Amino acid sequence: MTQDTPVYSGKAKSLYPTGRAGELLVRFRDDITAFDGVKKDVLTRKGSYNAQVSARLFTLLEEHQIRTHFIRLIDECSMLVRELEMVPLEVIVRNIAAGSMVRNYPIEEGTPLDPPVIVIDYKDDARHDPMLNDDIILALKIVTAEELSLIKEIALKTNIVLSRFFAERGITLVDFKIEFGRDNGTMVIGDEISMDSMRLWDAGSGASLDKDVYRFDKGDVLEVYRQVTERSLDRGEKT
Amino acid sequence: MTQDTPVYSGKAKSLYPTGRAGELLVRFRDDITAFDGVKKDVLTRKGSYNAQVSARLFTLLEEHQIRTHFIRLIDECSMLVRELEMVPLEVIVRNIAAGSMVRNYPIEEGTPLDPPVIVIDYKDDARHDPMLNDDIILALKIVTAEELSLIKEIALKTNIVLSRFFAERGITLVDFKIEFGRDNGTMVIGDEISMDSMRLWDAGSGASLDKDVYRFDKGDVLEVYRQVTERSLDRGEKT
Repeated sequence: MTQDTPVYSGKAKSLYPTGRAGELLVRFRDDITAFDGVKKDVLTRKGSYNAQVSARLFTLLEEHQIRTHFIRLIDECSMLVRELEMVPLEVIVRNIAAGSMVRNYPIEEGTPLDPPVIVIDYKDDARHDPMLNDDIILALKIVTAEELSLIKEIALKTNIVLSRFFAERGITLVDFKIEFGRDNGTMVIGDEISMDSMRLWDAGSGASLDKDVYRFDKGDVLEVYRQVTERSLDRGEKT
Repeated sequence: MTQDTPVYSGKAKSLYPTGRAGELLVRFRDDITAFDGVKKDVLTRKGSYNAQVSARLFTLLEEHQIRTHFIRLIDECSMLVRELEMVPLEVIVRNIAAGSMVRNYPIEEGTPLDPPVIVIDYKDDARHDPMLNDDIILALKIVTAEELSLIKEIALKTNIVLSRFFAERGITLVDFKIEFGRDNGTMVIGDEISMDSMRLWDAGSGASLDKDVYRFDKGDVLEVYRQVTERSLDRGEKT
């Protein structure tokens, strides 16, 4: 099914045509990068862990009437998706202060954010993904006011679903980033939801279970990704 | 009236006690700085121009039922004001894309912004005044939700009043920055409104009539500040 030349290649995924209009194949590669691409490595099986967790979470969201581009997994690291008209926004939902929130503002890491904080960045590597606000988003005509409020509503609903899912597995969802696209005019979650795009802390130990392990050399990132994959694929929703 | 030791000294103004509780004396100095203080100079009479324009604009706003800290001018470069509990926000209103809006986002300088765009930065030199959004402002508890919506309402009303004032004098108000403080619990405009804090373009020639002349070495900044002062103090509201 995969053809040789991707229609698009990002830092960790490549998109291929499938021969069928309106569909794409997403291949999760083993590349891992951080700090705007300054740090990069190849970690065997990393792509497969992210693909499997993404597939699990997209399925979960669909079960909760949240639309995503996900159709099905093709193999361990390839996913069939609906082709979206992507919106150049990174929509971040934060439940606990960490990362850039703590670097940029006077708030201590670990401070609970209730209600959750939504931050929306303009997705543009050359500009280093500058933060937006609602007025700027509308002035740049990136989305309409109606789409913007839908995006925030979906992001907050997604946060509730994902937070509960991870809490049931002894993991705290600290923050996550999602991206959106239009599918026949409707706002749909695209891209991925994985250990590359979430900040996860073990509920017991507080240990990082996400790309921060790689960013800050906190341990064996591949083993951490494997553990999150195992805990995510575990059906048992016991507490 | 001025005592020797300021209670606070900023990049271009110093605040002195007056001996009377709840009042301060603001001295507009001749210092001019740009790029986070990297470029700096002393320009004789610059402080007096900004003090006079600020006084004129504060008076104008008060005439339109917008509360400011202004009491009266004491001399050419000193202003008596009510002491406020300052809020660490820089509230920027933009009518036309310019400056950081153009540097950070894909929009051309000179693009009209209708409705105007409000951007709010966290006033913190050490952090380089990072941009905020409403969720972050509330999470950091800088102001309440009610205060935030009042701040935006006052900023937009101020924009209407100042835009008309300058239009009547052949000047386009491109953008401006104001700061707020609490006076017995009410939100009041403090700080200054001057050629240091507004972006003004001559309506005919498009020439800069503000600190951009200094920032980008566009000409005789002192002569430009003198002209804006003269045009602002001119009573004649003819078009």
